[in-house]
Amino acid sequence: MKDATPAHAMQPEETPELKALYKGFEAESLMPLWTQLGDLMPVHPKPRAQAHVWKWANLLPLAEASGRLVPVGRGGERRAIGLANPGLAPHAYVTPTLWAAIQYLGPRETAPEHRHAQNAFRFVVEGEGVWTVVNGDPVRMSRGDLLLTPGWNFHGHHNDTDQPMAWIDGLDIPFSHHNDVGFFEFGSERVTDYATPNFSRAERLWGHPGLRPLSGLRDAVSSPLSAYRWVHTDAALTEQLLLEDEGQPATLEPGHAAIRYVNPTTGGDVMPTIRCEFHRLREGGSTPARREVGSSVFQVFEGQGSVSLNGTVHTLEKGDLFVVPSWVSWSLEAQSQFDLFRFSDAPIMERLSFMRVQVEGEMP
Amino acid sequence: MKDATPAHAMQPEETPELKALYKGFEAESLMPLWTQLGDLMPVHPKPRAQAHVWKWANLLPLAEASGRLVPVGRGGERRAIGLANPGLAPHAYVTPTLWAAIQYLGPRETAPEHRHAQNAFRFVVEGEGVWTVVNGDPVRMSRGDLLLTPGWNFHGHHNDTDQPMAWIDGLDIPFSHHNDVGFFEFGSERVTDYATPNFSRAERLWGHPGLRPLSGLRDAVSSPLSAYRWVHTDAALTEQLLLEDEGQPATLEPGHAAIRYVNPTTGGDVMPTIRCEFHRLREGGSTPARREVGSSVFQVFEGQGSVSLNGTVHTLEKGDLFVVPSWVSWSLEAQSQFDLFRFSDAPIMERLSFMRVQVEGEMP
Amino acid sequence: MKDATPAHAMQPEETPELKALYKGFEAESLMPLWTQLGDLMPVHPKPRAQAHVWKWANLLPLAEASGRLVPVGRGGERRAIGLANPGLAPHAYVTPTLWAAIQYLGPRETAPEHRHAQNAFRFVVEGEGVWTVVNGDPVRMSRGDLLLTPGWNFHGHHNDTDQPMAWIDGLDIPFSHHNDVGFFEFGSERVTDYATPNFSRAERLWGHPGLRPLSGLRDAVSSPLSAYRWVHTDAALTEQLLLEDEGQPATLEPGHAAIRYVNPTTGGDVMPTIRCEFHRLREGGSTPARREVGSSVFQVFEGQGSVSLNGTVHTLEKGDLFVVPSWVSWSLEAQSQFDLFRFSDAPIMERLSFMRVQVEGEMP
Amino acid sequence: MKDATPAHAMQPEETPELKALYKGFEAESLMPLWTQLGDLMPVHPKPRAQAHVWKWANLLPLAEASGRLVPVGRGGERRAIGLANPGLAPHAYVTPTLWAAIQYLGPRETAPEHRHAQNAFRFVVEGEGVWTVVNGDPVRMSRGDLLLTPGWNFHGHHNDTDQPMAWIDGLDIPFSHHNDVGFFEFGSERVTDYATPNFSRAERLWGHPGLRPLSGLRDAVSSPLSAYRWVHTDAALTEQLLLEDEGQPATLEPGHAAIRYVNPTTGGDVMPTIRCEFHRLREGGSTPARREVGSSVFQVFEGQGSVSLNGTVHTLEKGDLFVVPSWVSWSLEAQSQFDLFRFSDAPIMERLSFMRVQVEGEMP
Repeated sequence: MKDATPAHAMQPEETPELKALYKGFEAESLMPLWTQLGDLMPVHPKPRAQAHVWKWANLLPLAEASGRLVPVGRGGERRAIGLANPGLAPHAYVTPTLWAAIQYLGPRETAPEHRHAQNAFRFVVEGEGVWTVVNGDPVRMSRGDLLLTPGWNFHGHHNDTDQPMAWIDGLDIPFSHHNDVGFFEFGSERVTDYATPNFSRAERLWGHPGLRPLSGLRDAVSSPLSAYRWVHTDAALTEQLLLEDEGQPATLEPGHAAIRYVNPTTGGDVMPTIRCEFHRLREGGSTPARREVGSSVFQVFEGQGSVSLNGTVHTLEKGDLFVVPSWVSWSLEAQSQFDLFRFSDAPIMERLSFMRVQVEGEMP
Repeated sequence: MKDATPAHAMQPEETPELKALYKGFEAESLMPLWTQLGDLMPVHPKPRAQAHVWKWANLLPLAEASGRLVPVGRGGERRAIGLANPGLAPHAYVTPTLWAAIQYLGPRETAPEHRHAQNAFRFVVEGEGVWTVVNGDPVRMSRGDLLLTPGWNFHGHHNDTDQPMAWIDGLDIPFSHHNDVGFFEFGSERVTDYATPNFSRAERLWGHPGLRPLSGLRDAVSSPLSAYRWVHTDAALTEQLLLEDEGQPATLEPGHAAIRYVNPTTGGDVMPTIRCEFHRLREGGSTPARREVGSSVFQVFEGQGSVSLNGTVHTLEKGDLFVVPSWVSWSLEAQSQFDLFRFSDAPIMERLSFMRVQVEGEMP
Repeated sequence: MKDATPAHAMQPEETPELKALYKGFEAESLMPLWTQLGDLMPVHPKPRAQAHVWKWANLLPLAEASGRLVPVGRGGERRAIGLANPGLAPHAYVTPTLWAAIQYLGPRETAPEHRHAQNAFRFVVEGEGVWTVVNGDPVRMSRGDLLLTPGWNFHGHHNDTDQPMAWIDGLDIPFSHHNDVGFFEFGSERVTDYATPNFSRAERLWGHPGLRPLSGLRDAVSSPLSAYRWVHTDAALTEQLLLEDEGQPATLEPGHAAIRYVNPTTGGDVMPTIRCEFHRLREGGSTPARREVGSSVFQVFEGQGSVSLNGTVHTLEKGDLFVVPSWVSWSLEAQSQFDLFRFSDAPIMERLSFMRVQVEGEMP
Repeated sequence: MKDATPAHAMQPEETPELKALYKGFEAESLMPLWTQLGDLMPVHPKPRAQAHVWKWANLLPLAEASGRLVPVGRGGERRAIGLANPGLAPHAYVTPTLWAAIQYLGPRETAPEHRHAQNAFRFVVEGEGVWTVVNGDPVRMSRGDLLLTPGWNFHGHHNDTDQPMAWIDGLDIPFSHHNDVGFFEFGSERVTDYATPNFSRAERLWGHPGLRPLSGLRDAVSSPLSAYRWVHTDAALTEQLLLEDEGQPATLEPGHAAIRYVNPTTGGDVMPTIRCEFHRLREGGSTPARREVGSSVFQVFEGQGSVSLNGTVHTLEKGDLFVVPSWVSWSLEAQSQFDLFRFSDAPIMERLSFMRVQVEGEMP
């Protein structure tokens, strides 16, 4: 595939007749394809979204300042600060499909309940003490946990401690906004249950490996397991690397352990629009450069390393986030054991048959 | 669900400290959710796209003028004039996901071959004489036919007659452009086969009702049947109304016959992103008002009638097109037998579990 | 894989103690595996069913004699004579899963209505004049047609002429009987509708290629298209051979056209347990030897040829039937254009992941 | 549905002509349907298999005696004693589809490796010390564990202790034998790995709730998780009853906790032909009477209670097994907390659309 935009080869001369024609188009809400084809139909994805890194060291103080200056409550609903991709202004979109934000809840605060068609999750890079209450079920949030709020489930949060807590929210707001699929409904101004159990009811019912309750035989569009605990994620990754040490097939590629969080009723992605994964590289390890259709956001959970995005290397530390727009080449290098959480819009691309993957050194 | 945007109830006062915080956000490519929630997460879809009607009587002369003024050839690729939804400027998008255009090919002209990841179809409201060549298979285009060019199939067109011909193109260009999924490749500058058979090879292999070739047992993402002929569509609709006359269940609702064009390997939609249907109302018939998530475009194929879009009635004649944005209420009324072609992004909404439908008089 | 039954290598000596043990087993309704392993678990399928040919020239006179001697009516229900595989006595099973019978209806006779969980079809090798009434919908039966009666649909037949008619019935009675899945219910003693339309309502609703009624969007376990007409089958096969003449991929293998009858709501088999296909060989053509898990029955529809079954060649003429038990090698040779209808239990084997296929000259 | 077999109403008189006709049938390997319809097509399933109970107290001594008298090794392969349903003589079938056996392995013994198309599992009602080696992966067998050996995986067992061990095997041998789908291949005479790890590699890779390795994204026909440990099963059941105590929906019905063992790649049954479940009733609890198409085997794991099978009550203790043939009514009563393992052929019935369920007190 040649890397030239197709549309510039042959444009008609702008004669007065042609200008009149274009006026006629405008009057009738029409636009010619031939003047814009190269932009609309590039030879490969040319995202407006930019590869970009957000440093946790810069985000957290701003979140803390918000905690002092901005109340949380009905109306604003959440003290969430969106990562605004510089290429997607004026929207606070991290990619054309995904929203990523740091959310901050002060000591003893409550974020009121609501529900929306948009799918959401939270990932906790540090801290604890908040419970998110999903359809009345209190779900503890602790470091390393992934917590789900699939579309149209009521949810609110409350901080049960005297310490603030910050975490990452991921949603499909841009997809939903662009395509006009959103619904929203207010719920209780307080969370409906202030209990602080270690395990949610969803976990107690669904969190047993390979076991499905007979009361839950109907497949669910989104995972009914609202919490994926760090203890399990860590164990799964640890075992993959140990199995690799034993010469067994287990890792994605040498030195690269990885899991996908899945819906136990189907084995597929946790939500229809968002894929969540966790990656661990051994110290000194690296990944081949990959391009994929669709966009991803990574957050460093632990360790030091770097990412190369279309050839530009960015050093990364705990909490740092970076975005990989569509068809941007990415590869990781680990200076220590290097743990990263990832979410992406891959389910959209796969369900609509747009996915393509190109891995350095592999035949396309 | 109350019809108020949620975000305006409680915004923090814009103190100097808050302004400084907002500056800090900007410097770090961040944006708060609380100032924009109501726009981003409305209580129900509030599309920027507008309900709009394009009159065929106005489109066709502009297409003809383009035929005189604009050459067709490599670079511009197609003499296609997009329906530009007034709410989606500056893009020539008819909806956030769909592109609709009138394409015009003069006597003996050829539109060169290319392929792209975007899914495309053509629908012929009048005329004949053009063959579209899909991966080397010449497909006749005649009044009432639906012709498919699913993603990544080479295709070009040529007019075998001394008369021009115009038709409607539908693609998922906006979806593809917004989400960065597009690939494009030039093919031959001439079509690869100038034969003008009545039936394409695809039809000869796949166009037998309920019969599947043993050479084609692998399910296909998009329909392998590249042409859906008017003779079959008309017969199917005619039979539905006759069956209704006989007191048998056959129509969608009284006086309303309708078919969906499907992929014979799955029974599902013809392409992963685009649904195509044909609707026929009896003279004097009407449909209940419906709201659906996702957007549609209709073209009147034959007959007189009107559409009510969010309560505004528009009179329609042969060739007229109208767009129904997400969650806009629509209903049809027929002054004669009233035939309409429809395409929509419903496969996207259904595959991603965002579909909702509300029909007047039915329980939600 | 060595072709020895595994169990004979090492059997314990039959000491008095062992005999006592075996007595003990018997008293407790137990049986040891080690004495019967080779029979129960052979190295490859060793069917009791035999490869066998039934000559139409012998069947038809017996059916006619039944017509004179045996009434048709409530109780016996059908004047159907089952093909009893010599290896499966005392059952009238053509294979362990399939039943095949010749059914005979005299002038003006009616076979009363009933329904059963068993799936059934009819295939007409010659004659016409009978209508089968499926859930109240009269379906014409003519030469070359495949007619479906999926499980739990009421059905009866009546002969509208002064000539008798015979055809082939296929059902999953042996599967159903062995596995205890059958239900049966009597219906009307007369058929509920004696009309004799050329086309059933099912065909009028579902028999349009690639078109699905919007009143029928729910996928069906079995095909809603109750008749597959010869005119379409013949056209599909004719086109495959013509496309092959033109150098296009269309046939299953050189000189071998073939179609599968499918459920238009899914593209899959017409019924959950029975696959139906039609095969046409060019004069002088042949097929490579194949072994498949599961069993098939073929009927010659037209032409002369032969089948080789595990190396034994059988000459075949119009109407002749033969059975291919599991893992028996089969290949066809055509002395003229050679048309064969086939049905099999392949959907059972595929849905339960037992299918294996071995084709002569292909790598396993 | 009337409970009369349909075939006896109207049989033709056995005249000499008719007898001659029947002779003619026999000579041509034909059999009339009308003489056998009632047996072949009953109004509801009339299984030859009988409801039956096997007492563990009787089985175990016979297994121990076998341990003394019958060697285990190549040829006989396994010291397994099949539960022979009294209605299915001369076969050692517990149901028409399922095989159930007690297998016994003496101190330090090895059962050699082999593989077969038949799907198999083991369930351990008591004891420990044996490892089953599945495709080279040693899998510990302990009380309460379910261990899988899906079709065509090499497997052998060895006892690492000085104590014998007995357990239950379940396979689809009858289905496979009747339908001729079996393949069998010998493997190593010794197991390929005598290691005795606590956890198999399969568990280490797949045994983390809701987490899927990126190295294992291809869906598997059978579960890749070869061991389902008692600790998880017990916890899942315990939590269901606790949730019920808290007023939450969790149990199948009041006082009746139940889980299904599932394939984590799909959420469906562990193997294509066999469903495995575990049921726990509270002391004093009972279940409504159920009839289901297809057959089941239960083993009491712990506690006292009884089962009513078509109205006959059988008292049950630890280890006792009983079989529920198709459409036989069954209900349980618990005199203590009552734990039962269950396996069935329900995947066959569901995949082939033959399943029906009738629950006492529910509308059909």
